[in-house]
Amino acid sequence: MNAAAEDAGALAAVIDQIGPLDGAAMAAAAGRLDRLTKPPGSLGRLEELVITLAGITGRPDAPLAHRQIVVAAGDHGVVRQNVSAYPSEVTPQMVSNFVAGGAAINVLAAAAGASVTVVDVGVALPIPRVRRDRRRGGRLVRARIRNGTADMTQGPAMSRGDALHAVNVGLRLVTDLRLRGGIDVLGVGEMGIGNTTAASAIVAALTGEPVHRVTGRGTGVDDEALARKVAAIEEALAVNRPDRADPIGVLAAVGGFEIATLVGLILGAAAARIPVVLDGFITGAAALVGAALQPALAPRLIAAHRSPEPGHAIVLERLGLRPYLDLSMRLGEGSGAALLIGLLATACQVRDEMATFESAAISGPSGG
Amino acid sequence: MNAAAEDAGALAAVIDQIGPLDGAAMAAAAGRLDRLTKPPGSLGRLEELVITLAGITGRPDAPLAHRQIVVAAGDHGVVRQNVSAYPSEVTPQMVSNFVAGGAAINVLAAAAGASVTVVDVGVALPIPRVRRDRRRGGRLVRARIRNGTADMTQGPAMSRGDALHAVNVGLRLVTDLRLRGGIDVLGVGEMGIGNTTAASAIVAALTGEPVHRVTGRGTGVDDEALARKVAAIEEALAVNRPDRADPIGVLAAVGGFEIATLVGLILGAAAARIPVVLDGFITGAAALVGAALQPALAPRLIAAHRSPEPGHAIVLERLGLRPYLDLSMRLGEGSGAALLIGLLATACQVRDEMATFESAAISGPSGG
Repeated sequence: MNAAAEDAGALAAVIDQIGPLDGAAMAAAAGRLDRLTKPPGSLGRLEELVITLAGITGRPDAPLAHRQIVVAAGDHGVVRQNVSAYPSEVTPQMVSNFVAGGAAINVLAAAAGASVTVVDVGVALPIPRVRRDRRRGGRLVRARIRNGTADMTQGPAMSRGDALHAVNVGLRLVTDLRLRGGIDVLGVGEMGIGNTTAASAIVAALTGEPVHRVTGRGTGVDDEALARKVAAIEEALAVNRPDRADPIGVLAAVGGFEIATLVGLILGAAAARIPVVLDGFITGAAALVGAALQPALAPRLIAAHRSPEPGHAIVLERLGLRPYLDLSMRLGEGSGAALLIGLLATACQVRDEMATFESAAISGPSGG
Repeated sequence: MNAAAEDAGALAAVIDQIGPLDGAAMAAAAGRLDRLTKPPGSLGRLEELVITLAGITGRPDAPLAHRQIVVAAGDHGVVRQNVSAYPSEVTPQMVSNFVAGGAAINVLAAAAGASVTVVDVGVALPIPRVRRDRRRGGRLVRARIRNGTADMTQGPAMSRGDALHAVNVGLRLVTDLRLRGGIDVLGVGEMGIGNTTAASAIVAALTGEPVHRVTGRGTGVDDEALARKVAAIEEALAVNRPDRADPIGVLAAVGGFEIATLVGLILGAAAARIPVVLDGFITGAAALVGAALQPALAPRLIAAHRSPEPGHAIVLERLGLRPYLDLSMRLGEGSGAALLIGLLATACQVRDEMATFESAAISGPSGG
């Protein structure tokens, strides 16, 4: 069996392991919440998080000790079309920043008690050497497949084999992290100059939405660059003609290495009943690919926040997910996922540490 | 000078000390944020929190070491009209729960690194004795003025003197807490069976909105109780005819002891340039009274979250505040304020701990 066939086989096996949420665990968690000293349901979506966590893990008392953020990094040949406000050198510079502990995700992950792992799966340039910050620096996993994707306006961004390989980097990373102490929750993030262009192309290809409806300003391009971005995506779709019935084909044609690795991370964690916290638009596009491969995936995902990218609302609606935060964040890196992990940890503390009506001798409704 | 005149004088002095935000400090904070390794503005409302904090405190690097939640507690004579799902015994039971550390606010405050102080300013029944939890139990301040308000459907809930006295309990508590180690941020919360009825009455009186538009289900009453609640508020407004040009008169007529103390806490903290984090509808009604006394108050307040109480959206709109969280929480106690303080702390960590473009040697936009 060749490498691509092995990768395809491993992916198929993981997809088969993803099943529905555990309703009994959810009911048990809901019952526990109703015994706590507060009116039933009065903590709103904090309670929903506790119940969802139970459904995903099968445990009404799911632990949250091991919190992991994985940031997948890759570059995009389509930046040659001048679709981004920043040059590709920024991708490896930011990877170094993640290792050195100076990026937003380092601060936000530390605040949420989460570790950061950065995986270079397709950065174009060398990663500048830096010293890893002991307290909050990310661990760098070197798994580069190519120095960035090809320009998708000229042909497929990746070969099908490379796309499957990148997905499997994600699957294997989940296995590796489970062996290294375990993962109770996985937040996913990304770094890659040009990757909102790839994400918009994936979402257009998988949903059939017009390109202009799913394309935004990314890190902040002006009107002219936005027009170039829409034109580049339309050209890429015309040149590659991706078939929405073949999600891996779509990923190869107009995706990116880091997005493919995110697909593997998301599916691998879901198969292991690990709650996956999506960040913004790009991780959402990866989840859309995953859900196209396995429709049972979506309920196992937690949407952290709503980004201002117009395509993100469409992705969330297709996945049937309602984000918890709406803070106009558009950074990526897993920054929104880290905030949500902090909220999830707080929700678990409420579940575990509050008194019950019985233990605190508090009257129930109607003078009871 | 009698006690009421002294209380009125102290309040007037505090109101005079409240001025506009510090624009220079806000500009300095914004400049600092733009040097951090992220696209400008990409952390959205987290950045807005940092800038607001600078404007309120006058310090671009405002500290957040001392985080305090104050929960004001009082009972309401209007519960005789069967407007609440819970009996008044629950108020002192929950006050004990706050001291014992078993309530939601104890868990949420601990998660946000905040201390809890509970002030009994008008609870109707004795507070059951409990042992204070060392780690997260609230400190109880005994400042009871009466055993609950009178039934506002029969006449004023409080005398004007008692209302001013309760406001001054809040003012003095701010002074006391500043002396005991300081306050870098104050989250306000409340406990009082029946207090959504009083809050709705205050909001109707101050805004002129129809009662049914500002009245909701509180902790969860059914349709019949909601109809009784609306009728009771309409009767209270008809009987007392509060004058919206006299906010203290409105507070006395249809408010509550804990709401009056919240007015004092909010104004006292604002005068001391301490950021005030509002919780939900009841603290919002107190802020509306404060803003009616001093229009410069509102920009010094941070709205934590949007509660499902229909009157809350009206209060926020009148105050010109946009909440940060929308999690369908309707518990009170300061629970939403505690979550926001956690978010504010994270925003300050971003401000203080991220690398700058220069320190991390990262390229700027357009290949710069």
